Amino acid sequence: MGARTDSMTVKPVNNPLIALDVMGGDAGLPDVMAAAEVASERYPALRFRLHGPEARIRAEFVRCPRLSASAVVVHTDDVVLGTDRPSQALRRSRTSSMGMAIQAVKDGEAHAAVSAGNTGALMAMALFALRTMPGIDRPALAALLPTLKNDVAVLDLGANTECDAENLVQFAVMGAAFARTVLGLETPRVGLLNIGEEELKGTDELRDAATLLRGARLPMRFEGFVEGDKIGQGDIDVIVTDGFSGNIALKTAEGTAKLVNGLLRHAFRSTWLTRIGYFFSRSALQALRTHLDPNAHNGAVFLGLNGLVVKSHGSANVRGIANAIGVAHDLIIGRVGDRIADDLANFRAHRPDVLAETGK
Amino acid sequence: MGARTDSMTVKPVNNPLIALDVMGGDAGLPDVMAAAEVASERYPALRFRLHGPEARIRAEFVRCPRLSASAVVVHTDDVVLGTDRPSQALRRSRTSSMGMAIQAVKDGEAHAAVSAGNTGALMAMALFALRTMPGIDRPALAALLPTLKNDVAVLDLGANTECDAENLVQFAVMGAAFARTVLGLETPRVGLLNIGEEELKGTDELRDAATLLRGARLPMRFEGFVEGDKIGQGDIDVIVTDGFSGNIALKTAEGTAKLVNGLLRHAFRSTWLTRIGYFFSRSALQALRTHLDPNAHNGAVFLGLNGLVVKSHGSANVRGIANAIGVAHDLIIGRVGDRIADDLANFRAHRPDVLAETGK
Repeated sequence: MGARTDSMTVKPVNNPLIALDVMGGDAGLPDVMAAAEVASERYPALRFRLHGPEARIRAEFVRCPRLSASAVVVHTDDVVLGTDRPSQALRRSRTSSMGMAIQAVKDGEAHAAVSAGNTGALMAMALFALRTMPGIDRPALAALLPTLKNDVAVLDLGANTECDAENLVQFAVMGAAFARTVLGLETPRVGLLNIGEEELKGTDELRDAATLLRGARLPMRFEGFVEGDKIGQGDIDVIVTDGFSGNIALKTAEGTAKLVNGLLRHAFRSTWLTRIGYFFSRSALQALRTHLDPNAHNGAVFLGLNGLVVKSHGSANVRGIANAIGVAHDLIIGRVGDRIADDLANFRAHRPDVLAETGK
Repeated sequence: MGARTDSMTVKPVNNPLIALDVMGGDAGLPDVMAAAEVASERYPALRFRLHGPEARIRAEFVRCPRLSASAVVVHTDDVVLGTDRPSQALRRSRTSSMGMAIQAVKDGEAHAAVSAGNTGALMAMALFALRTMPGIDRPALAALLPTLKNDVAVLDLGANTECDAENLVQFAVMGAAFARTVLGLETPRVGLLNIGEEELKGTDELRDAATLLRGARLPMRFEGFVEGDKIGQGDIDVIVTDGFSGNIALKTAEGTAKLVNGLLRHAFRSTWLTRIGYFFSRSALQALRTHLDPNAHNGAVFLGLNGLVVKSHGSANVRGIANAIGVAHDLIIGRVGDRIADDLANFRAHRPDVLAETGK
């Protein structure tokens, strides 16, 4: 096996290095490693630290020749379970595969950690180990969703149930940097999720955040308030919201897509005519399914920490996990952390004093 | 014309009487009246008060023979516009077609008001004229949404951006009464929309509301917290949430259905093979569209007021408006107000003292 167990030094960004928790998620170690192999083929410069049981990892290297040549193995048998509470998981920050992957980012031994494990545990460990960046009060969970046009970045998807105006502005800055990095946009269009487009709609927090963003000098185009039905239209690149509404929107969109898919399947089975129709339409329906496949959009990132942590969905398959590793790769190469730091510094230097005037 | 302009006395519920704002919404007076004609055919006992310009209403009676025989006309030329602010509309509570329809409910001259006009104006006027029922702090906007199985009732859909635990409990009581009336269920399954199913998830308000509902004696089965992806599954009959999240969920579901529909149309146009497929599949796709058609679920009701007010969607067609009138009919016949009052009294008599113990 070509894998080295000695530590590799992290160089700027030419050789992106990902600390991978091979034990997280439903897929299991072989699929996580197969996904890393796919990512290694896609990004030849990518290197890995694999955190998990060494013997099983080494046995799997037979099927992952590229990975075995570009990975170090860091042994541990301790695994954070899906049922573990964040507080239980935190105690195993130094021993579990998930905790060690995050620790590697903290210690400068990897550029990003990727795990498909317990989201609550990952959030707690990442926040505890990496802490928030200067100027960021709370990290946010961001991901891409499919639309009629290009993907849209949505945040926060569930890290913070309640947010104030400052949090929302910070999310907008982070989301724009994310979209510039991952979607390759120069000045992404940013909208605040609300229950109406008029300036008077919604909560005080939303109105204050809109006032701040309207007056800010940032590499984005602030489009004001957007409603939930605009998420899928593709005319906004970044949707900013608190973690409660963001999670509700994400899950509702998933559920509705599933509903339509279920109805469609039922409809095509209803008569012999529609069965013939299905036969001819298979390629179209397959394209639809591929477009909406959560695996094609897998990889949510915790933005706002001193280090990158990417969460792969627990139910993601090999393709999905490879996609999440790809997101981590793009964020490393695109130096998303530096972009956020620069934009925050710029925002503060030219901070609109609109809220100060009203005594806030 | 057979219509009488004299006032009819409201009798209990044998002859349900609806005050209809013929001027609200995008459809226009002819479509609103055509919808009332459809509803009159469907419910022969139904009678109407038509609020709007008398000459135009009378001219339209030619095409609405049943309606003309079961309606009184109450003339007004004053119309609340979609662009009017609630505060502007309130000043025309006595003169506008919308305001007069609500006033008729207040004065006991109709059992319910139906309008497709400006939602904000309708909410403000209805709350101002009818006030909340004893035991209800805030009214909620409720409607039915399609699922894989039976429809689900969701509330609040946007009347209250922020809600406390008491509000949510009252919404649950009202939503259950709504589901029993409109869906014909004896003990509807009620869930609180949250970002996870575990008891510790979400806000204090949600956890307190769950505690109260778990201990309450009500004609419902409380199923705890449900996530957004469960809305479309059909395993819960009533989804309770604050107006902000409810509106986000509703609009996101609408947007996602539109997204899938758009992708589907695009997919079927992609090759000659899929075009053939479309030809054979038309009936299946039509059935899908009918199942998801917002017009088939049109008619949101303001629950918790001393009188019934039903809001038809501004963009509803004749079928949609007829459906909203049908919702009003069912709520009158089912005496939803009495059910809510009974359930509230019962809840208060056996109110769980769980929150009192924690000093709340």
